[in-house]
Amino acid sequence: MEKTVQLYEGKAKKVFATDDPERVIVSYKDDATAFDGTKKGTIAGKGTVNNRMSNRLMQLLELQGVPTHYVEELNERETVVKKVSIVPLEVIIRNISAGSFAKRFGVEEGIVFPEPTIEFSYKNDALHDPLMNAYHARALSLATWEELEQIKSMAFRVNEVLKAYFLSLNVKLVDFKLEFGRLGDGKIVLADEISPDTCRFWDADTNEKLDKDRFRRDLGGVEDAYQEMLRRVFHDET
Amino acid sequence: MEKTVQLYEGKAKKVFATDDPERVIVSYKDDATAFDGTKKGTIAGKGTVNNRMSNRLMQLLELQGVPTHYVEELNERETVVKKVSIVPLEVIIRNISAGSFAKRFGVEEGIVFPEPTIEFSYKNDALHDPLMNAYHARALSLATWEELEQIKSMAFRVNEVLKAYFLSLNVKLVDFKLEFGRLGDGKIVLADEISPDTCRFWDADTNEKLDKDRFRRDLGGVEDAYQEMLRRVFHDET
Repeated sequence: MEKTVQLYEGKAKKVFATDDPERVIVSYKDDATAFDGTKKGTIAGKGTVNNRMSNRLMQLLELQGVPTHYVEELNERETVVKKVSIVPLEVIIRNISAGSFAKRFGVEEGIVFPEPTIEFSYKNDALHDPLMNAYHARALSLATWEELEQIKSMAFRVNEVLKAYFLSLNVKLVDFKLEFGRLGDGKIVLADEISPDTCRFWDADTNEKLDKDRFRRDLGGVEDAYQEMLRRVFHDET
Repeated sequence: MEKTVQLYEGKAKKVFATDDPERVIVSYKDDATAFDGTKKGTIAGKGTVNNRMSNRLMQLLELQGVPTHYVEELNERETVVKKVSIVPLEVIIRNISAGSFAKRFGVEEGIVFPEPTIEFSYKNDALHDPLMNAYHARALSLATWEELEQIKSMAFRVNEVLKAYFLSLNVKLVDFKLEFGRLGDGKIVLADEISPDTCRFWDADTNEKLDKDRFRRDLGGVEDAYQEMLRRVFHDET
């Protein structure tokens, strides 16, 4: 399958059309941004890590009953995915307090919740992706109630699968952001990516951060953290 | 019933203990604040309007199956209420877009929603009362799931009753904030106040604002708007 015209360039990925109207090719970049785009940089090798890791996790999720956009990895940075129309919600699941949750609600990072939380942000750069709830999403007609319920239940299922999986790699899945898309027939599938850009990963023994927080907070060892996560996900195969 | 010691002074009310450990006296002030306390002023007669209107509405709600903290009006500014421990959530119901909803989600004021929205804010001045959802409230142990469900269903019931009631007074109930409290035995009741401080009221014909937005936005006629709302609520009796 060949790329034709570029459809879109985002902060971390480009999307290209193909000959098949139901397939697009995603190309992962090394560009990194944080804090609503105000911090910019490059993380060498990030595109490769995110592409390979995300594809592996999407395949794992498909096998455990979560429909995704994944079709086929073309090369280290490029993947064929089903063409979707993105539901304009960032769906965030949290198992442990960190990041904006800790700041917004005035609590420390590292509090393990008795049950995971879910929240929606409105995907809208101009408005800085504000937190919203399902009623707000309905009021703005971003999705139907049925879609919102489906997205919620799929997101919790993703958490169940990935939390256990990462623990087997000695990694705590602290929180993560998902995006969902509608296929041509309206079916909802998991889209976007699952990577150290979109998840918080802490080493289960040391709580060392193995994700984009190393870039956001200038902790150093950014590239090493991404490579370490890739090694763990591909464990004995690399 | 007599006031003993002052238990609390808030932005718009004082609360006093009484001889009865299960009763307190609320005293309404004319002080007004807005924008997280940064704007301060006085609205002459506001304490009287809010006390009398809130009591009337609480009685109306009790008659329609919503348990409240209301016990007895002592005088124009003071009321005996059941002593509660406040659930630290501001519960906001919206029928029409306005205020923080319009700003946060980048839409005009005045959009009539097909169904009301509900949202929670964490009552916490230091954190500026951040928006949260039920999962966040659970993660911070602010209420049980059962309490949250009860609060949600009571808030929607309040909206049903008050929306129809205000429409009969030629007033659109745009949005409003409620607070709930736990009695000694844990029972949840509607607490705080329902007034032009805590509701947005628009005249049904002219959309003229008859609430605290006149103070927030320096629209003039603040006192008149409060008195007009009091007159409508007490219609043929004044």
